[in-house]
Amino acid sequence: MTTFFSRMALCAGVGLLVLMTTGTAQAAVSGEAAYIFNTFSFLVHGFLVMLMAAGFAMLESGLVRTKNTAAICLKNIALYSLAGIMYYLIGYNLMYVDVAGWIGSFSFLYNPSADELALIGADEATPEMVAKVVDASGYSVMSDWFFQMVFVATAASIVSGTLAERIKIWPFLIFVVVLTGVIYPIQGAWVWGGGWLAEMGFSDFAGSTLVHSVGGWCALTGAIILGARKGKYGADGSVHPIPGANLPLATLGTIILWFGWFGFNGGSQLALGSALDAAAMAIVYVNTNLAAAAGVVTAMLLTQIIYGKMDLSMALNGALAGLVSITAGPDLQHHGLALVVGAVGAVIVVFAVPMLDKLKVDDVVGAIPVHLMAGIWGTLAVGIFGGGSFVTQLTGVIAIGAFVVVASAVVWLLLKFTIGIRVSEEEEMMGLDKMELGLEAYPEFGAGSKTI
Amino acid sequence: MTTFFSRMALCAGVGLLVLMTTGTAQAAVSGEAAYIFNTFSFLVHGFLVMLMAAGFAMLESGLVRTKNTAAICLKNIALYSLAGIMYYLIGYNLMYVDVAGWIGSFSFLYNPSADELALIGADEATPEMVAKVVDASGYSVMSDWFFQMVFVATAASIVSGTLAERIKIWPFLIFVVVLTGVIYPIQGAWVWGGGWLAEMGFSDFAGSTLVHSVGGWCALTGAIILGARKGKYGADGSVHPIPGANLPLATLGTIILWFGWFGFNGGSQLALGSALDAAAMAIVYVNTNLAAAAGVVTAMLLTQIIYGKMDLSMALNGALAGLVSITAGPDLQHHGLALVVGAVGAVIVVFAVPMLDKLKVDDVVGAIPVHLMAGIWGTLAVGIFGGGSFVTQLTGVIAIGAFVVVASAVVWLLLKFTIGIRVSEEEEMMGLDKMELGLEAYPEFGAGSKTI
Amino acid sequence: MTTFFSRMALCAGVGLLVLMTTGTAQAAVSGEAAYIFNTFSFLVHGFLVMLMAAGFAMLESGLVRTKNTAAICLKNIALYSLAGIMYYLIGYNLMYVDVAGWIGSFSFLYNPSADELALIGADEATPEMVAKVVDASGYSVMSDWFFQMVFVATAASIVSGTLAERIKIWPFLIFVVVLTGVIYPIQGAWVWGGGWLAEMGFSDFAGSTLVHSVGGWCALTGAIILGARKGKYGADGSVHPIPGANLPLATLGTIILWFGWFGFNGGSQLALGSALDAAAMAIVYVNTNLAAAAGVVTAMLLTQIIYGKMDLSMALNGALAGLVSITAGPDLQHHGLALVVGAVGAVIVVFAVPMLDKLKVDDVVGAIPVHLMAGIWGTLAVGIFGGGSFVTQLTGVIAIGAFVVVASAVVWLLLKFTIGIRVSEEEEMMGLDKMELGLEAYPEFGAGSKTI
Repeated sequence: MTTFFSRMALCAGVGLLVLMTTGTAQAAVSGEAAYIFNTFSFLVHGFLVMLMAAGFAMLESGLVRTKNTAAICLKNIALYSLAGIMYYLIGYNLMYVDVAGWIGSFSFLYNPSADELALIGADEATPEMVAKVVDASGYSVMSDWFFQMVFVATAASIVSGTLAERIKIWPFLIFVVVLTGVIYPIQGAWVWGGGWLAEMGFSDFAGSTLVHSVGGWCALTGAIILGARKGKYGADGSVHPIPGANLPLATLGTIILWFGWFGFNGGSQLALGSALDAAAMAIVYVNTNLAAAAGVVTAMLLTQIIYGKMDLSMALNGALAGLVSITAGPDLQHHGLALVVGAVGAVIVVFAVPMLDKLKVDDVVGAIPVHLMAGIWGTLAVGIFGGGSFVTQLTGVIAIGAFVVVASAVVWLLLKFTIGIRVSEEEEMMGLDKMELGLEAYPEFGAGSKTI
Repeated sequence: MTTFFSRMALCAGVGLLVLMTTGTAQAAVSGEAAYIFNTFSFLVHGFLVMLMAAGFAMLESGLVRTKNTAAICLKNIALYSLAGIMYYLIGYNLMYVDVAGWIGSFSFLYNPSADELALIGADEATPEMVAKVVDASGYSVMSDWFFQMVFVATAASIVSGTLAERIKIWPFLIFVVVLTGVIYPIQGAWVWGGGWLAEMGFSDFAGSTLVHSVGGWCALTGAIILGARKGKYGADGSVHPIPGANLPLATLGTIILWFGWFGFNGGSQLALGSALDAAAMAIVYVNTNLAAAAGVVTAMLLTQIIYGKMDLSMALNGALAGLVSITAGPDLQHHGLALVVGAVGAVIVVFAVPMLDKLKVDDVVGAIPVHLMAGIWGTLAVGIFGGGSFVTQLTGVIAIGAFVVVASAVVWLLLKFTIGIRVSEEEEMMGLDKMELGLEAYPEFGAGSKTI
Repeated sequence: MTTFFSRMALCAGVGLLVLMTTGTAQAAVSGEAAYIFNTFSFLVHGFLVMLMAAGFAMLESGLVRTKNTAAICLKNIALYSLAGIMYYLIGYNLMYVDVAGWIGSFSFLYNPSADELALIGADEATPEMVAKVVDASGYSVMSDWFFQMVFVATAASIVSGTLAERIKIWPFLIFVVVLTGVIYPIQGAWVWGGGWLAEMGFSDFAGSTLVHSVGGWCALTGAIILGARKGKYGADGSVHPIPGANLPLATLGTIILWFGWFGFNGGSQLALGSALDAAAMAIVYVNTNLAAAAGVVTAMLLTQIIYGKMDLSMALNGALAGLVSITAGPDLQHHGLALVVGAVGAVIVVFAVPMLDKLKVDDVVGAIPVHLMAGIWGTLAVGIFGGGSFVTQLTGVIAIGAFVVVASAVVWLLLKFTIGIRVSEEEEMMGLDKMELGLEAYPEFGAGSKTI
């Protein structure tokens, strides 16, 4: 997405080219066909990313305990909903409209469709009117809005997993409102909105930093301010693993996320109106898949070597770490590099999970290693493997990290000292489902061997 | 879909336009490219809607008790299968072929591919033959068949949820055969087939009435004729909630349905062969998402205010109510209206669920409020917000409602007084899984706190 | 896919045609637009097939016992990952590059993107350079790689289900490495790579034999060499059914597989750059759906007639049998035949499942009847219904069967007599989850009625 402007320029260029080279025109794509391809790519890849809401919901449902399962389901569908509304109300404009260095437009209830062809009205549209809009934009504005909206929802999803099992639902959702309406769009404006980091040359194709690290930073500050779950860390420094209640659902969630990632990275090519774009998009798909595959295999081998056993949740997180790692640069063409980038992401996760436990940072699903740490790695890897300057990449990682840590900490602390963010000890013991929702996720399934 | 004919006319118009304006032709889409875009849109959006079969199966699996879970799974995959076969055998022709006011053709085993380009044979096809078919139809007939087929399956899915836990499997499936082969296609012919309601100007873009209310009316008549589950309503007028057994599956099902709805509404643009269509489709996606999001947030806020707690299943039904509500008019361009339409849908559901219980209409999954009532609301909203005449919209709602209520009641009653539609009390107590299928859905999961 | 070369020739032909018939050129698709359509078709259909990884994971999770659920999840995500890596390292070249009769190129770490447009670099690309690549290939090489890769993963998925609950994880994964890197690509080269069976006229559109029977043969040899699960077959010849632990997940998996099959068969049209291709693709979708639907209904009716009860897992396998059966010839245009082909597939499964039990071949999920036997039927049906010569079809079935049985038996036996392929009796009793992974899939769900 860093190449948003260059891509659009290219797109327009190809359009121009077509007009100039009537002789060979038959071989090229018309401006209107390119408009349709670009728009349909946003829609198709957008719905893939949308399904990641199900992926996160299932991953997190599988990794929490039964007593907190309905609550995590509710949080996930609610955060996706709030993200969409906030991004409509203020987020998109703040991120993309009239960005001047640091920030876009603070306009409310803007109706982006006002720019759309559709508003002309099919009956009144003349070929000249259509051609004018097609040439000016190259794609439907609302298809782009849809695609960007599902990204902001992803960032919010990352937070819910880490903070599960002890955060109150409403304060969490208020945080989501601020994150998706303000925090995410501001840093997004710096890069994809064409702000100061974009001008500096910072490169983040589909959001290793802009989406995944941002969610990860919010999760980290939240986890520190919220504290660990009761019983996770003993006074003697011991760590008590709290196993997830439904591992097939966690597996399903991970594969759905992997599936959605083809939309996440593939759609971030941002255009499909030329053969060049189509070929580049295919490379993005392949690298995305290879990095995830390398993440799984690396996590399996490492856990086998270190612990003498494989670990399903580590393999799942290995896949996700590979995906997050490649997200900043899936357009780098050498596929062997994608394997390396994904494998290193998984190595980071295998070592970071116990490290976080030593620091008593309680991350229920492992989102901080997967999204924050692998996200940083992926962004720096673009600098290492020739897709940008390492120093610029590092600058972007630090600048966005500093902003998000400060902004999210302010919000978490404001919530903590006003309405409170943590459920009572009794509620935590009884589970959020009974106490906040008055129901059970699995009312008929009896107590098993490891209920805590 | 009400705009089926105008769209096709537009499409043909654009094609014509191309031929007339050779000077600016380079900017437009060729007739053959438009044919491919239109066809591929039907296929892509069709497979999205097809996955709604999994959405309904999981939603319903999550909301019934464990002892009836395998039966509801079987019903769902069976009804999808029967819908496809019946729509092939007679439904499609009845709905779309030679519709004269009220009804189409009663031809059996028709092979619509006979109209297809593919029958020409790739080896023999000359450019002239291809151009002739392309100009005549604008899209592949079978891609349209596929898209329409998944809609009829959706209507049948709605019925299975309401009647779960006490209806016999085979009589239910016989009802599905009649619904998908005859009832649905006849009322469909009135609108999308170009019959009398279409001529009157009735507008239902993707089926708030034609699909969702139709399913809802069948569910309502079925629920009344079948009666409530044992133990749901006390003799003293008390209501005993029967909690669903697996809420993560219900959540998964809802998100999958939301995902599929982009196909449902987006594909109902019925064309992608021009920039105008692509832009309109993007607006449909955005409004679909906003209405669902507004439904979730509204349901959460309302249940918090009224009951002092949030309710996961109400939030899920809020999403679905928002989706059903916007389905009649997602092409209305102002996105703020989509929020309003979806929110009102959720309000209806929150108040209708307890109202139905007062009337002792036992709707296991809430399909009557969600699909019937929100469907009526969405259809009328098109009249209210300027997408059609309110009186005409109301006429369509009443006409289709009356027809479906009478037709479905006749079928339910015929079944009731011949082979019977309700399992015995013993079977209901033991569960349909053991009695009708001879197995258990979760044989290893012990009895929990709320088994009834 | 047997028509890979003819399709591409056709595609080039259409391109040529365009250049020759400038007069009517406006109606046709430009070479570059066709390139985009073809490439996007590979990507879209490829991601559909990719989701089949989730389908198999859920189907198998639902049909094993709780104590082996995490292990089957791990196997599924691991085999998908290994298949992708092996197909990148050696498989694709072996199958498609410079195939001379029996085998392709044994080149390692080849970077197919070297052929891609994307390598030219967007800044340097001239219209002439683009046109040259577009005309030469007609689609992005890497999009084809992606599409072929998800097929090899499918073949490996088939094996894991049959051998569940008693095979060691690492030896199984080593088998997957050999299958996806060597065995599958070699027989694939014979047909889709243009080798000797293709030259003979053997026809397998999307892989009834090349994918499904291959997976099925590997599963069969593995099941024989590995032996049955303890307790499945009594010394007196009695059969003890071992029920699956989570039937909604099995249902979900089946519907996801059905969904993915539109990619499997639809994408195997291999082109979308002409109206002829689009129309043919739509026919493939419809026949795929009808065959599956017929499979479900047939399995339900048969089990009702034979056993007096319906059976959910048989209905699910009926769907899959229908899908496997139609896979060799979904491009045959008469839809009535698709119903017949799918129904016969389900008949085979209903009778083969007990037959295998009589032979004491323990197939946990029924993959051998579904993928091997229905795959053979579907391949022969192409010969019966006029899509090819019956003798040639039979020759292909036998040749590929013989090769895969011998090759896979060698690998299984090598593994058996070196590192061993079967867990100890104690491990089998305790479950693979605790013994190989050190965790439980459902730690909080108590013991139910049928735990074994």
